[in-house]
Amino acid sequence: MDIRRLLEQVKDNDLEVDQAMDQLKNLMYEDLGYANIDHHREIRNGYPEVIYCEGKSDEHILGIIEKMNKKGSNILGTRCRKETYNKVKEIYNHAEYEELSKILKIKNKDIVNLGKGKVLVITGGTSDIPVADEAYYTAKFLGNDVVRLYDVGVAGIHRLLNRLPIIQEARVIIVVAGMEGALPSVVGGLVDVPVIAVPTSVGYGANFGGLSALLTMLNSCASGISVVNIDNGFGAGYLASMINKLK
Amino acid sequence: MDIRRLLEQVKDNDLEVDQAMDQLKNLMYEDLGYANIDHHREIRNGYPEVIYCEGKSDEHILGIIEKMNKKGSNILGTRCRKETYNKVKEIYNHAEYEELSKILKIKNKDIVNLGKGKVLVITGGTSDIPVADEAYYTAKFLGNDVVRLYDVGVAGIHRLLNRLPIIQEARVIIVVAGMEGALPSVVGGLVDVPVIAVPTSVGYGANFGGLSALLTMLNSCASGISVVNIDNGFGAGYLASMINKLK
Amino acid sequence: MDIRRLLEQVKDNDLEVDQAMDQLKNLMYEDLGYANIDHHREIRNGYPEVIYCEGKSDEHILGIIEKMNKKGSNILGTRCRKETYNKVKEIYNHAEYEELSKILKIKNKDIVNLGKGKVLVITGGTSDIPVADEAYYTAKFLGNDVVRLYDVGVAGIHRLLNRLPIIQEARVIIVVAGMEGALPSVVGGLVDVPVIAVPTSVGYGANFGGLSALLTMLNSCASGISVVNIDNGFGAGYLASMINKLK
Amino acid sequence: MDIRRLLEQVKDNDLEVDQAMDQLKNLMYEDLGYANIDHHREIRNGYPEVIYCEGKSDEHILGIIEKMNKKGSNILGTRCRKETYNKVKEIYNHAEYEELSKILKIKNKDIVNLGKGKVLVITGGTSDIPVADEAYYTAKFLGNDVVRLYDVGVAGIHRLLNRLPIIQEARVIIVVAGMEGALPSVVGGLVDVPVIAVPTSVGYGANFGGLSALLTMLNSCASGISVVNIDNGFGAGYLASMINKLK
Amino acid sequence: MDIRRLLEQVKDNDLEVDQAMDQLKNLMYEDLGYANIDHHREIRNGYPEVIYCEGKSDEHILGIIEKMNKKGSNILGTRCRKETYNKVKEIYNHAEYEELSKILKIKNKDIVNLGKGKVLVITGGTSDIPVADEAYYTAKFLGNDVVRLYDVGVAGIHRLLNRLPIIQEARVIIVVAGMEGALPSVVGGLVDVPVIAVPTSVGYGANFGGLSALLTMLNSCASGISVVNIDNGFGAGYLASMINKLK
Amino acid sequence: MDIRRLLEQVKDNDLEVDQAMDQLKNLMYEDLGYANIDHHREIRNGYPEVIYCEGKSDEHILGIIEKMNKKGSNILGTRCRKETYNKVKEIYNHAEYEELSKILKIKNKDIVNLGKGKVLVITGGTSDIPVADEAYYTAKFLGNDVVRLYDVGVAGIHRLLNRLPIIQEARVIIVVAGMEGALPSVVGGLVDVPVIAVPTSVGYGANFGGLSALLTMLNSCASGISVVNIDNGFGAGYLASMINKLK
Amino acid sequence: MDIRRLLEQVKDNDLEVDQAMDQLKNLMYEDLGYANIDHHREIRNGYPEVIYCEGKSDEHILGIIEKMNKKGSNILGTRCRKETYNKVKEIYNHAEYEELSKILKIKNKDIVNLGKGKVLVITGGTSDIPVADEAYYTAKFLGNDVVRLYDVGVAGIHRLLNRLPIIQEARVIIVVAGMEGALPSVVGGLVDVPVIAVPTSVGYGANFGGLSALLTMLNSCASGISVVNIDNGFGAGYLASMINKLK
Amino acid sequence: MDIRRLLEQVKDNDLEVDQAMDQLKNLMYEDLGYANIDHHREIRNGYPEVIYCEGKSDEHILGIIEKMNKKGSNILGTRCRKETYNKVKEIYNHAEYEELSKILKIKNKDIVNLGKGKVLVITGGTSDIPVADEAYYTAKFLGNDVVRLYDVGVAGIHRLLNRLPIIQEARVIIVVAGMEGALPSVVGGLVDVPVIAVPTSVGYGANFGGLSALLTMLNSCASGISVVNIDNGFGAGYLASMINKLK
Repeated sequence: MDIRRLLEQVKDNDLEVDQAMDQLKNLMYEDLGYANIDHHREIRNGYPEVIYCEGKSDEHILGIIEKMNKKGSNILGTRCRKETYNKVKEIYNHAEYEELSKILKIKNKDIVNLGKGKVLVITGGTSDIPVADEAYYTAKFLGNDVVRLYDVGVAGIHRLLNRLPIIQEARVIIVVAGMEGALPSVVGGLVDVPVIAVPTSVGYGANFGGLSALLTMLNSCASGISVVNIDNGFGAGYLASMINKLK
Repeated sequence: MDIRRLLEQVKDNDLEVDQAMDQLKNLMYEDLGYANIDHHREIRNGYPEVIYCEGKSDEHILGIIEKMNKKGSNILGTRCRKETYNKVKEIYNHAEYEELSKILKIKNKDIVNLGKGKVLVITGGTSDIPVADEAYYTAKFLGNDVVRLYDVGVAGIHRLLNRLPIIQEARVIIVVAGMEGALPSVVGGLVDVPVIAVPTSVGYGANFGGLSALLTMLNSCASGISVVNIDNGFGAGYLASMINKLK
Repeated sequence: MDIRRLLEQVKDNDLEVDQAMDQLKNLMYEDLGYANIDHHREIRNGYPEVIYCEGKSDEHILGIIEKMNKKGSNILGTRCRKETYNKVKEIYNHAEYEELSKILKIKNKDIVNLGKGKVLVITGGTSDIPVADEAYYTAKFLGNDVVRLYDVGVAGIHRLLNRLPIIQEARVIIVVAGMEGALPSVVGGLVDVPVIAVPTSVGYGANFGGLSALLTMLNSCASGISVVNIDNGFGAGYLASMINKLK
Repeated sequence: MDIRRLLEQVKDNDLEVDQAMDQLKNLMYEDLGYANIDHHREIRNGYPEVIYCEGKSDEHILGIIEKMNKKGSNILGTRCRKETYNKVKEIYNHAEYEELSKILKIKNKDIVNLGKGKVLVITGGTSDIPVADEAYYTAKFLGNDVVRLYDVGVAGIHRLLNRLPIIQEARVIIVVAGMEGALPSVVGGLVDVPVIAVPTSVGYGANFGGLSALLTMLNSCASGISVVNIDNGFGAGYLASMINKLK
Repeated sequence: MDIRRLLEQVKDNDLEVDQAMDQLKNLMYEDLGYANIDHHREIRNGYPEVIYCEGKSDEHILGIIEKMNKKGSNILGTRCRKETYNKVKEIYNHAEYEELSKILKIKNKDIVNLGKGKVLVITGGTSDIPVADEAYYTAKFLGNDVVRLYDVGVAGIHRLLNRLPIIQEARVIIVVAGMEGALPSVVGGLVDVPVIAVPTSVGYGANFGGLSALLTMLNSCASGISVVNIDNGFGAGYLASMINKLK
Repeated sequence: MDIRRLLEQVKDNDLEVDQAMDQLKNLMYEDLGYANIDHHREIRNGYPEVIYCEGKSDEHILGIIEKMNKKGSNILGTRCRKETYNKVKEIYNHAEYEELSKILKIKNKDIVNLGKGKVLVITGGTSDIPVADEAYYTAKFLGNDVVRLYDVGVAGIHRLLNRLPIIQEARVIIVVAGMEGALPSVVGGLVDVPVIAVPTSVGYGANFGGLSALLTMLNSCASGISVVNIDNGFGAGYLASMINKLK
Repeated sequence: MDIRRLLEQVKDNDLEVDQAMDQLKNLMYEDLGYANIDHHREIRNGYPEVIYCEGKSDEHILGIIEKMNKKGSNILGTRCRKETYNKVKEIYNHAEYEELSKILKIKNKDIVNLGKGKVLVITGGTSDIPVADEAYYTAKFLGNDVVRLYDVGVAGIHRLLNRLPIIQEARVIIVVAGMEGALPSVVGGLVDVPVIAVPTSVGYGANFGGLSALLTMLNSCASGISVVNIDNGFGAGYLASMINKLK
Repeated sequence: MDIRRLLEQVKDNDLEVDQAMDQLKNLMYEDLGYANIDHHREIRNGYPEVIYCEGKSDEHILGIIEKMNKKGSNILGTRCRKETYNKVKEIYNHAEYEELSKILKIKNKDIVNLGKGKVLVITGGTSDIPVADEAYYTAKFLGNDVVRLYDVGVAGIHRLLNRLPIIQEARVIIVVAGMEGALPSVVGGLVDVPVIAVPTSVGYGANFGGLSALLTMLNSCASGISVVNIDNGFGAGYLASMINKLK
């Protein structure tokens, strides 16, 4: 049932205003008491439903998945514990899991490639990979062609410069870096496409849980860079996707 | 003289490698001793040259403008003091100035509209206008169709909701907000296009020079939002422009 | 024995000043060595006794409950560990426990409804529920009619706006939110009653244990909002109760 | 023209929906380009219009006052510079000004006393008076009976205890304190009514612009206390007013 | 062997300068490789030797105790784990342990009462007791008459005021408080003797591990107050002792 | 009129309770509306009256001085502007002023030497002198024998060690230091008397207005050290005085 | 195969440019997918390969070691877990481990002494030893003559001054200190050689994970001091080594 | 008079111990009351005397210069106001001044070149020049061959890479950078000599007075980097000099 259909029924007096109201709300979100599932993005643009699993009980997560699954949506779970995945797997046999990035995927229909170009995910070091992979799998699941280029931090600048062709081919670039977080500035100076910077909490001492990298990125002297929250690989993947599908 | 031309001369032995090297460097940046002017972006994509005026002496700014002007580039100066503008105006009669946002513009050739859609600039309050206008004039000077929607903060949510059509028409949205900085989250929930959040240092008490708004925006629970530095209207305008010209 | 009675005995020389002094002190607080139990609020307004259990040993908690119980007071324990509750339950069979919010309740007499209107507790997300429930059960135990409205955060503003009638019916509103903490500003703009904002430590990255939400709420541009400590559901419930019983 | 009238005209087809839409919006807020004046609170509860003057140009302030004045509303300006007041006074001869607290008042109709009891404003020291007076004049202008009790900080506790009767007579208490900010905790322990704590930036050294007092108040061990932003006397006065008019 | 004796031997040529040098150093501190035990305070003023146990291995602690014990000194261990104490007890049967405050005591000679008056230790709440007891046992072991007054925080000010005689009898006062840390200001206003304020990390939310209480105490508007590090009960006890023995 | 006298009059029925009440309050503090002058310390221990001038208007300061002067007290003003002093001087010809430390002194009676020993004030550098002198003149005015030892910071440790005799002669030591603030630790290791550490805001870069020195001093590994607020020379001088007069 | 050799082959047409390109890259770093091993420092100066083990899985560490081992390099692992070492030991029998500092060493060829003088490592206390030893073993493995001087903090300054000859003999000094971090300033004042300051996270209360010591060291008033990250013993050892080998 | 000479006189009984003591102290530092001038470095290594002028009165500065001048030393003044220089110039005609970096130089004897190689000073941007020049002139005045390379920040990495020969020729490198402060990491990855990183307070928004650049540099993933205080060009120049003169 789509919204236009519903409105026409109202106009033609085939549906009472109050009934229409209820159906409309349900189309948009379902109230489970502990959560209001929001279906409107899925309706508008074919995106998957997303569950941020951290801090939710397994029971709640399973309840939310059940409602989403009924709509036939694809489902993406972020920060999903291994044990939660195991319980999900028992019920939804086709569920998949990426251990490093803790991504849960339930594919109920084909992923339509909505991206116009390539999304590139770069990391400064090996320890940034969990966050980078969260961005990578998110962007892929949202219908993008995604490429990875890992461990090319600024302290060995030739590792980065030797991959210039790959870098300059991308339409959107996600740069994931911890410690001093300098990589986005260098990358931003090499390309003319949007760069999404993701600070990670990787590092020690005066890193202060990613604050150091976050400030570095906000203060970047290169243009065309914006920043998402510390360790927020999902946010970067989602935004890259949104930019990449712009017609 | 373009780069391909130069390389062919090298190949055909019409130009020594060392001479080619020098010409190439000059094409890319000019060394004024106190500054290295970078022409490569202008060459690649027709963007104007940009000068960040804050902390530079009038002499330095005039020196940099002189070099840029010789190339026939359009020139955008940000954070330009009124007195500096007056000195510039004496030499470059066609220079223009936006007082509120301290933007200096020297137009040496027509601005080509590179944007594919509309850029929208929204503010939470009246006091955010200087930063918002920096974004507005930057995006316009970089060749975009830009619309402004000011003073529609979250404490009177109907002011925002009544303008939904304008909001949903944009291809990229810049949201400028100080104090609690909650506006980008609300806007992000209403649209499916990239939202660039700009925290401002407007506010008092526990605002801590924009830190409050900055943290709010980084922690936004809406998807598709990224953040630039506090008061960085230019950065937001530049990034919006970069996204908007994606083909 | 009430205070007036005691004073009259003094006046009539039926009681020595020193004896009166001791009895008076005991009416007001009892010294257990490690704690001074304060009975005066209970005496003045019929409120329950409250124990903040965190950081107290089970022995101390049981000792305090014993003294309070002798007075026949209702007893509310906050941040009470499950194991502590189990020990309490063995002795006081009518003790009740709310697991999510860790609230312990021992009801020795009927709760008198002191509130003049409804208290509404709103949350931005599902993960804010433990704090919100602490506020909910506190306000209920203090004699209020309390309503809950959960998971209506600003990133999907229609979820909130669709419940306007419930919101505008309340006499006092508690808004619990983590991450960017923008919800109180929006709610504050919709109503003309006091809004008590409770920042939670829910979130990650640059959330800094609730600091982000706290600053947002303090800087709110809406009027009629005040803030309690991070995760302090009890404080919000108590204050709401105090406001709601104003004649 | 009120809203009900307008809706009935729509129902009776005396007014087109589009026309009604425009009038309705105008009733609610007026768009001056640089500001959206919000009339809805004034309509709902007879409150004055409020202008936060800091960071606004005199021209903007005069423009906003002009619109508000046309509605015949009372007008309260906070953080109003002396020079601005002088310009206002030239046009609106009945304008009044409180120098210490920088409050501007334009009274176009009688202030209706909406408060049910007394509001008490307490300060820790003499230097807290500007902030305290902002609260005092705000609460008075919003229709409350307000009492002041200044310079009774905790380092000379007898100064406070000697005024217990005044303190215990209030229905809402605003406590303004800088430096260590301990006063609200002591007051909160003496009464059973809501205490609104206002930290001030008064102090030096590790005061950090009011942060010290702010944290103290948030961490208060007394119940029934909530906090507004540093130096936010207006916010406290407004909230006290909102609580005091609760029926 | 004392120092004067040694110097006279040098003067009389009964001891070579180099030999004297070695003996002198040994009298002052002994080098264990991983630690330099400093005996000079014990020599000068009869104070016990002190070991800060946190972060030291049991082997190191036992090694240090062995050297100290040989000199016949009294030994005070702070922040001593229970397991460490058990190992110590096996070797030094007369060792004693205070569980709450983790104080280890080995008494090899009588404690001489060096204090001229009483030291009073006050706490705001029950949860501050571990830190307060560290101060209490330290001051006692250093030869003072020490009195405790616990759980008399400012939110119930009468609990404090009722004990004025005890408070005004002290020669030095240690005030231990977490949460808002306001107690030292109130106490400081009631007496004319030095007040040593000890912030504790007790609390939650915006307490930030004791920072809130620390700032409060530093900003105290009462005179005669100074502050030691967060949770540093030992430092307060030691300083109180130093003041109390002043002739 | 002293308090005992007054109480005897009450007992003998020569004075009504209400009259006694009023006289008693006046003996303790006088209410000027904007300030409550507290005379009780002066009464108890012969200390001068103290005015913290910062943030007070000249009118208020003169008003307070007038009341204090009537009692014949000595008066100490801290952080007193030069212009304020000039106005004071016109009325009170015997007023004196210390320019560097901004100390105002009005001597109405001889200063009684209450100190039992010497107070020593040490600074790390030349720029710490204004704060150190505030401590110096405070301690002197409160009746102490005070010695100064300036510019003996830890980077040239021999400058300090060469003055050991002066240092070890003091009964209380105030150490004033900015930048890294390491001096109190070194001094604390050389003596057995209380050391009061005063961090100053002198320095640049990561000094953060004295925070660096403050944290250093709080974390000192030497015993017998406590800390007052940044730049709080008065507080240190007052506390030193309090300690030095202990019998 | 060295680089000159390779270039001559290109010049003589014995090697295609593309082949040369591949070999050159491999000489410089090897791409393992999850890591790019950088061999160029080892080639240039005979330094060992270094692996920062924290946050890397055992599989990754073993994979990296395998590649490095093939080149016959010496290998230094920092922050290596004991369990990782055990796995490494099974394969590389000559691997060694320093438990306190968690240093892993695989020696495949003799260490050449590259240092021109002595490196001295000093600590303030016993608890700083793990960090200091990381510096010690790093500097030794990089070919330096290294001396240790532990537990000579500023609170007992004679412990330091008695070792002046050892201190003044060094060519580079590493000073490791937690708590107040004052030691580098004192040492810096005693010598004319570079001092590398290493703040440690040792301490409690307002130490804030080493921030206190870090700020102290940055603000040092002694010249010739620079600072590395908190707990970064490796960085200090590496830098000392680099300075010590300067010809 | 040198120290050896003096000691021999003591040995030969030509000088009393007490007289020797006084002369020795004077050789080392002179006590001006407000300052202790330290001559010992000048004596040991021929370095100039240094005055940190900020926060010192002109009178004090002139007094200090007078004493230093008498010894015939070269004198370097940092952070010297223009007006101070003018006063100095009147007395010492040969004084020189660098306006941008506020360096004062009084050359009383030839500068001996003590450096073994070249010192290179690099900046990220034009606005970092004042700090960089402080380092440049300091290192030159201390006897080094110094080279400058300005405005080669990471956002245009080719500007840096094109100057590799200059960079790799240096023996010590000072890298001065504000905003994101990423330059030292890139430089550190290109060379094998010590890199001294100097964060500047240049930037805006979340730069927080240089904190952003400071944290970036401390967290650098490149080896061989250490950091001095924000804007501390002098410290970097002094340390570079100390390293460069190592034999």
